[in-house]
Amino acid sequence: MRSLKSKMVKVTVKPQNVSVNVSKGTLLIEAIRKAIPWFPSPCGGLGICGKCGVKIIKGELSKPTSNEKLLNTIHEGLRLACQAAVFDDTIVEIPYREPVAFPTISTIEIKVPVKPWIFWRTFETSKYPKPFDKLVLEEVGARYLSYAAAKELANVKLNSKVTTVAYGEIVYRVDTYHFEPLGLAVDIGTTKIAGYLIDLSTGTTLNEGFTLNPQLKYGDDIVSRMTIALMDKRKLYDMRNVTLKSIEDLAKKLALEVKKPVANITAASIVGNTVMHHILLGLDLSDIAFAPYIPKESSPIIEYGSNLGFKILKRTMVYIAPVISGYVGGDAVATLLTIHYLNPKPPSLIIDVGTNAEISLFLEDRIVVASAPAGPAIEGHVTSGSKGVQGAIYDVEAEKVGNNIKFNVKVLGETEPSGISGSGAVSIVSELLRIGAITVTGKLKTGDYDEKGVKYVKIVDSEKPIVFTQIDIREIQKAKSAIQTTWQLMLEDEGLSEKDLESVFIAGSFGSYLKPIHARRIGLIPKVNLDKVFIIGNAAGAGAKLMLVNNEARRKGEEIAFKAEHRVYASTERFKKLWIKNLNFRTV
Amino acid sequence: MRSLKSKMVKVTVKPQNVSVNVSKGTLLIEAIRKAIPWFPSPCGGLGICGKCGVKIIKGELSKPTSNEKLLNTIHEGLRLACQAAVFDDTIVEIPYREPVAFPTISTIEIKVPVKPWIFWRTFETSKYPKPFDKLVLEEVGARYLSYAAAKELANVKLNSKVTTVAYGEIVYRVDTYHFEPLGLAVDIGTTKIAGYLIDLSTGTTLNEGFTLNPQLKYGDDIVSRMTIALMDKRKLYDMRNVTLKSIEDLAKKLALEVKKPVANITAASIVGNTVMHHILLGLDLSDIAFAPYIPKESSPIIEYGSNLGFKILKRTMVYIAPVISGYVGGDAVATLLTIHYLNPKPPSLIIDVGTNAEISLFLEDRIVVASAPAGPAIEGHVTSGSKGVQGAIYDVEAEKVGNNIKFNVKVLGETEPSGISGSGAVSIVSELLRIGAITVTGKLKTGDYDEKGVKYVKIVDSEKPIVFTQIDIREIQKAKSAIQTTWQLMLEDEGLSEKDLESVFIAGSFGSYLKPIHARRIGLIPKVNLDKVFIIGNAAGAGAKLMLVNNEARRKGEEIAFKAEHRVYASTERFKKLWIKNLNFRTV
Ligand code: FES
Ligand code: FES
Repeated sequence: MRSLKSKMVKVTVKPQNVSVNVSKGTLLIEAIRKAIPWFPSPCGGLGICGKCGVKIIKGELSKPTSNEKLLNTIHEGLRLACQAAVFDDTIVEIPYREPVAFPTISTIEIKVPVKPWIFWRTFETSKYPKPFDKLVLEEVGARYLSYAAAKELANVKLNSKVTTVAYGEIVYRVDTYHFEPLGLAVDIGTTKIAGYLIDLSTGTTLNEGFTLNPQLKYGDDIVSRMTIALMDKRKLYDMRNVTLKSIEDLAKKLALEVKKPVANITAASIVGNTVMHHILLGLDLSDIAFAPYIPKESSPIIEYGSNLGFKILKRTMVYIAPVISGYVGGDAVATLLTIHYLNPKPPSLIIDVGTNAEISLFLEDRIVVASAPAGPAIEGHVTSGSKGVQGAIYDVEAEKVGNNIKFNVKVLGETEPSGISGSGAVSIVSELLRIGAITVTGKLKTGDYDEKGVKYVKIVDSEKPIVFTQIDIREIQKAKSAIQTTWQLMLEDEGLSEKDLESVFIAGSFGSYLKPIHARRIGLIPKVNLDKVFIIGNAAGAGAKLMLVNNEARRKGEEIAFKAEHRVYASTERFKKLWIKNLNFRTV
Repeated sequence: MRSLKSKMVKVTVKPQNVSVNVSKGTLLIEAIRKAIPWFPSPCGGLGICGKCGVKIIKGELSKPTSNEKLLNTIHEGLRLACQAAVFDDTIVEIPYREPVAFPTISTIEIKVPVKPWIFWRTFETSKYPKPFDKLVLEEVGARYLSYAAAKELANVKLNSKVTTVAYGEIVYRVDTYHFEPLGLAVDIGTTKIAGYLIDLSTGTTLNEGFTLNPQLKYGDDIVSRMTIALMDKRKLYDMRNVTLKSIEDLAKKLALEVKKPVANITAASIVGNTVMHHILLGLDLSDIAFAPYIPKESSPIIEYGSNLGFKILKRTMVYIAPVISGYVGGDAVATLLTIHYLNPKPPSLIIDVGTNAEISLFLEDRIVVASAPAGPAIEGHVTSGSKGVQGAIYDVEAEKVGNNIKFNVKVLGETEPSGISGSGAVSIVSELLRIGAITVTGKLKTGDYDEKGVKYVKIVDSEKPIVFTQIDIREIQKAKSAIQTTWQLMLEDEGLSEKDLESVFIAGSFGSYLKPIHARRIGLIPKVNLDKVFIIGNAAGAGAKLMLVNNEARRKGEEIAFKAEHRVYASTERFKKLWIKNLNFRTV
C-alpha cells in the first residue's frame, strides 16, 4: 500500500468538488479531465491559448514552462493545466469562463487595453425631445452622418433605445436597440479562413472558428489560382465573391454559436497573404504573379462593408491590413504585430512555416523580413499526406524493433489516423534521424520498396497503409533547406550568428503542432536552447484581433508594414549555393 | 455747341481703346455697352455680383453705393459699372476675367481664403519606383485608401501622371492625369436647382447656371409634392432620382460650357430647403408634413457620391448641409453663413423672400430664425403671374394719366413682357400706393371690372393684356403681413424696435429684382434708411460655395445650424392678431 500510495496523488477540482487519483508527474489537464471530462483545451494542450488556466489552491507542481511565462498567467495566479504536472495532493479551482466552441485555429492571447477605432454609445430617446440625429452625433462626439446612418435615423422613435456608432467624425450606423458592438477578425489563408468573434467592449474572444477557403475549387495552391484568375478575369471575381460569402457565413456561424446577432458586428479587420488580399479586393494579379512581384496595392484600406461587396456585413466598418510585398502579406504584418506585443529581446527570429514561409528578424529598431519558398511538403503534401484536420498524424515517436521501425503516432481528433500532416512529416524525419534510420544526407537506410522502386517506411499498418517515402524525405529536406538558408543569410547580413538569438518564435497553424525538438533537430530552426523557442499558433489571427480592438495596435501594424525591410534571397546565387549545402541535415 | 457739349461727356474704354459720347449722369455700364456690347452684367446690373467692376483711370463719378461698399470693390480699385454714373470725360479699363456664361442665379461674392476640406496633389510616378499606393498616401499625408481608390491604383503605371485626393485620413480617388479639382455647389430650390462650378484651387466660380427642378412634374408647390410622396413612396423615390439626375445634368452642362471634364468635380456641397433635403435623401416626409414639423434628419452628411446614388458624380465627395427645422432648411443655413461673412453690425435683419419666407435676426452672439407663411403671390403667383424668367415684369413705374394709370415696365431678358414676377407684383402695389391709386387698406380706387366683377388695372395693353387685380393686391397684402408680422414679433421678443436695426438684407433670387424702396413702402421690410438695405441675391448659393471652398466656413455653417434659435410664430394667437392689423399698409 505504502509504495503505491507514494506513487499516486489526489487531485480535487473545485467548484465541482470532484476528486481523482492519478500517478505523480501526470499533467494537471489529464487529472482534471478524469474529473471534468468537458474541461477545455482549445489549443489542444499546446500551451498557447491560455484557456486551460486554473487556480492552485493547494499542492506543489512542476516549474512554469516557457509558454506559461510568455502568457504571463502566473501573475494572474493561474497555472496552465496543460503545462503543469502534479507531484503532490492538489486542489485546483476552475475559474468561470464564457463557453468556448470546439478548438480550431487558436492563437496566443495578447492582452492589450481595449481602445477601438470605432466609438459607440447607447442611450434612450425617451429622455430627449426630437430631433434624434443631433443626439446620435452628440453621444459619440461626431460631426457628420453617413447616408446609411441618415436613413437609419428614420427608424428612431420617441421612447426608443438607440445605439450609435462612429468612425472618426462620421456616425455610420444607428440601431434601435441596445447592444455592445462585436468585432470580427479574419485571417484569410490559402487553405482556411479563420474568424474570431470579439466583444469590442472587453476585447474578449467570444468565439473562433474556420472554414475552408472556397477558392480551393480553383486549386489547392496559390499558383494554380493565380493562373486561372489571370486567364479569366471572371474567375478572379468569382474567387472574390465566394470569399466574401465565406467570410459572412463564418461570421454568421460564429455569432449564432454564442447566440449573438451577426448584425452586431460593427467593425472587422481582415488580414491575408498578398494573393488572398488581392483576390478579396478583385485586384489584377499580374503584378504579383511575375517578378518583381510588386503588389497592385499594399496600403491599409478602410471601407464600409457595403462598398466592399458584403451583404450581411454591409453595415460593418471594414479594415483591411496593409501588405509588405508580393510574398509578405497582411498575415505577416499581423504576426509581426503580435510579436511586437510579446516584446521579445532583440535579436529574435520569427518563422511562420508554410508553403511560402515568412521569416522575420526583430532587431533593436528594425525588422527584416523575407520569404522562403519551402514548397508544399512542409504543409503535409507528402505521399500519405493529410490536408484535413481530423485524423492527421501530427507527431510520432519512432523506435527500432529489430530491423523494423515502430511508430507511435499522435492524431488530431478522436479518430483513426488517416494521413500525415506537415508537423507529422517533420517529426517522422526527425525521429528517423534520431534513431539513425537515415543518414545526414537523408538516405533511408531501412524500409521496403514500392512498385515504382521507391523506398519507404510504414508509419501505420492498416488496410490502406500510411507510408513515408524517400521522396517525402527529399521534399522535407528541400523545404527545411529553403527556410534554414533564408534565416542563415538574414543573420549573416546583420552580422549575427544563431547563438546571438534571444528567442525563436514558430508561428502558423502548422507550427502549432510542431515540436521544437524536431524542428531544431532537422535544422528548420536555429540551434538554440529549447527554452528560447516559443510556439505561438496562428499569430496572424492574434494580430488581426489586436488591429481590431486597439487603435494604437492598428497604427503600430501600419508602421511595421511601412518600415519592415524586405529582403529578396530566393533567386540569388548566394541562396542557391547555400541551399544545396543545407539539403543535408546538421550533425547534432 | 457749348450747351450741348456741356451736357455730354466722352467715355473711353481700355484695353479696347473705344470712345463713346454719352450724356452726363449716364450709368457707366450703359456707356461701356455702347463701346463694348458684350460687356457682362451677370446680375443684371443689380450691384450684387461684382462682375462689372472696372478700373477708373480718369474721371469723376457718382459716390459709391451701399452695395459697392458691401462688395468692397473700392478697395480693389474698382467701381461697379452698373452702380456708378459718369459726370466727366472718363477713361476706364476692363480687367481681364474668365469668360462667364449667361446670367442666371447670381449671388453676392464673398471672398474667403481657399481652405478646402479635401486635399490633393499631382505628381509623376516616373520619379519614383513602385509601389504607387504609398506615394498616393504620402503625397496627401493620408493613411488609408477607400476601396474605390485601391481599385483605381490598378491604372497607375510607371511614368504616369497621377492626381490623388483625400478626405481626412482617407484617399478616396486616384486619377492618372493631372488636374486641379473642381467643386460643385448646389442649391436645390423648389422651382430651380442652381449650380456653381468652382475651381477649388482658387475658389473662383468658373460657371454658374440653373435647371428647373424636375419635381415640378409633381406640382409647383411643396405641399402637393409632399402629399404625392406621402401617398406613394415610389413617387418619393422617383423625385429623389430625377433630382440626382438633374444635378448631374447641370454639372455636366456647367463643366462642358467652360471646357472642363465633369469628372474633375471631386467635391460637392448641397444645400436646399428641408423638403428638398428630405426628397434628395429619400427620407420619409411624414414628420415634416405635419406639426411639429421635425425633420427626420437635420445633421450634415458626408458621403461618397456613389453611395448617395450619383452616377456621373460617383467619385465625388458630397457634403449635404444641415437643416435647422422643418421650415428652415440648409438654404437658410447657407444664407446665414453668407451673412456671417459679411460681418454685419448687430442687430441685423435678413429676409429671404419666398412662399415660405425665412426671417433671421443676427444679434451680438445669437441668431434667431423663424419662417413666415407668405404664400405664393410674393413669388409671382398672381392673375397675370409669370413663373419663367424671360419676359417677366420685375419692376414698374406708375404714372397717373387723367383717370388712367400708365405703367412703364422693366422686363427680364430682351423680349416682350409676358407676365408679372414677384418683385413686379410688389412694385405694382408700391407704385399704386405712391400715386394714391389704392387706399391704406388696399382698396383699388380706379380700374375696370372683369366678367367676374373683380376690379383690375391693366399693366400692359396687348392682345392678351397683363392685369393686376384687387385679389392680387389682397394676396400681396397677406404675404407682406406674414413677413412683417414675423419680424415685428421677433424684434419685440428681443426688446428691439426697427429703428435699432443696423442693416436689412434681402436675399433670394426673387429678392434680387426687388427695389428696396418698394419693399419698404408696402411694409415688407422695416422703416430704415435705404443705405442700410442690401440686396444680396441668391445668398444660399454663396453659402454653398463657402461651405465648399473653406473648411472653417463649413464648420461655421454647422455651428450656425446648431445654435440658431428657431422661433415658431405662425400658429400663435399673437401672430394672428398682429397679422390682421398688418394687412393694412403703413402710412408713409
Ligand atoms: S490548452 Fe493549455 S494553453 Fe491551450
Ligand atoms: S452687374 Fe454690376 S454688380 Fe452685377
